[in-house]
Amino acid sequence: MNKISKAVVSRLPRYYRYLDELRQQKVERISSKELSKLMNVTASQIRQDLNNFGGFGQQGYGYNVQYLYDEIGKLLGLDVPHKMVIVGAGNLGQAIANYGNFKNRGFEIIALFDKNPELIGKKTDGGEIMDIADLYDFVKENKVEIVALTLPKEPARKIAEKLVECGVTAFWNFAHTDLGFSENIIVENVHLSESLMKLTYRISENNIKE
Amino acid sequence: MNKISKAVVSRLPRYYRYLDELRQQKVERISSKELSKLMNVTASQIRQDLNNFGGFGQQGYGYNVQYLYDEIGKLLGLDVPHKMVIVGAGNLGQAIANYGNFKNRGFEIIALFDKNPELIGKKTDGGEIMDIADLYDFVKENKVEIVALTLPKEPARKIAEKLVECGVTAFWNFAHTDLGFSENIIVENVHLSESLMKLTYRISENNIKE
Repeated sequence: MNKISKAVVSRLPRYYRYLDELRQQKVERISSKELSKLMNVTASQIRQDLNNFGGFGQQGYGYNVQYLYDEIGKLLGLDVPHKMVIVGAGNLGQAIANYGNFKNRGFEIIALFDKNPELIGKKTDGGEIMDIADLYDFVKENKVEIVALTLPKEPARKIAEKLVECGVTAFWNFAHTDLGFSENIIVENVHLSESLMKLTYRISENNIKE
Repeated sequence: MNKISKAVVSRLPRYYRYLDELRQQKVERISSKELSKLMNVTASQIRQDLNNFGGFGQQGYGYNVQYLYDEIGKLLGLDVPHKMVIVGAGNLGQAIANYGNFKNRGFEIIALFDKNPELIGKKTDGGEIMDIADLYDFVKENKVEIVALTLPKEPARKIAEKLVECGVTAFWNFAHTDLGFSENIIVENVHLSESLMKLTYRISENNIKE
């Protein structure tokens, strides 16, 4: 498979979401034109994006919804289970643990970790909140693949480095810092305040126009 | 001001974050080369990005950290206060309400709303959790500018449409759906499961390479 551009990859989950909805509505096939209307992108972008992966569609027939959904799911790595733990069991960590949709998509959240004794022992949909002192042994024993970091930036970096030594190769990072690993460690950042700043940028841009 | 590309805008908050750290470390000026090392981007990208806004730097002198920080803050609309409410006071809504950094950056979270009677009346750093029945009057009376939607997709769309009628022009949308407004309503999406899928895409891409 050729290296696919970041922009294309970033659009795949949205295709997947729309196809999931169509599938649930029992829609069997859809043309790129119909899909483009629904998703508010051009039909040619859809065709180009999907052509990166070999097409999936048939001229004059459109896409088979279930098939395309499954294939994009495979591309997104959702056909294999992913073991995940959450480090930081505050509101954000618990929100992620209790979000049912992840389980449906092959994400197995098996534990949360925190240093706060008031939280340790509490049950969530993603398993029990455990003492952070037990994190490294747990990760090694259970061959955890993904760690979600929902904790302040100061401890996040240090903990992430130790986790890499324990075999973790992928981080879903909510801490307000870049982890700064080399390329073989995968980091997907969710910087909430940066997203909010993009919103206010657009607000002030609109105000200038007026 | 010319229309700035989305890619440039999406990089501004990261510049802002690094400049904030430098400022806190009492660094007074920095060259694009030093900044590029720190941020792991090319110096020419930094210069190009900032040239969109008139430059800010002086040849052979570098950037004045505090000045650049302030100017980017203005571009991001952070020099004026923004009134925000949160609709959906579950774990995610409360996580946002209690996140202190927003307040430092001009975001004034003044209330949360939920339909769950067990939550109504609870205090958070972003004000009290109120009955969702009072949302629309509250928004009108308090001239709320931004609404964060941290609730399931089914109610989110309907509530957002009513809020637009009440004068809301900007949404920070965590619901797993596109709101589908026309261009004069600003929507910044945070689709957490899509971010997680980008992560697993990169995991399976790495597995194929090996």
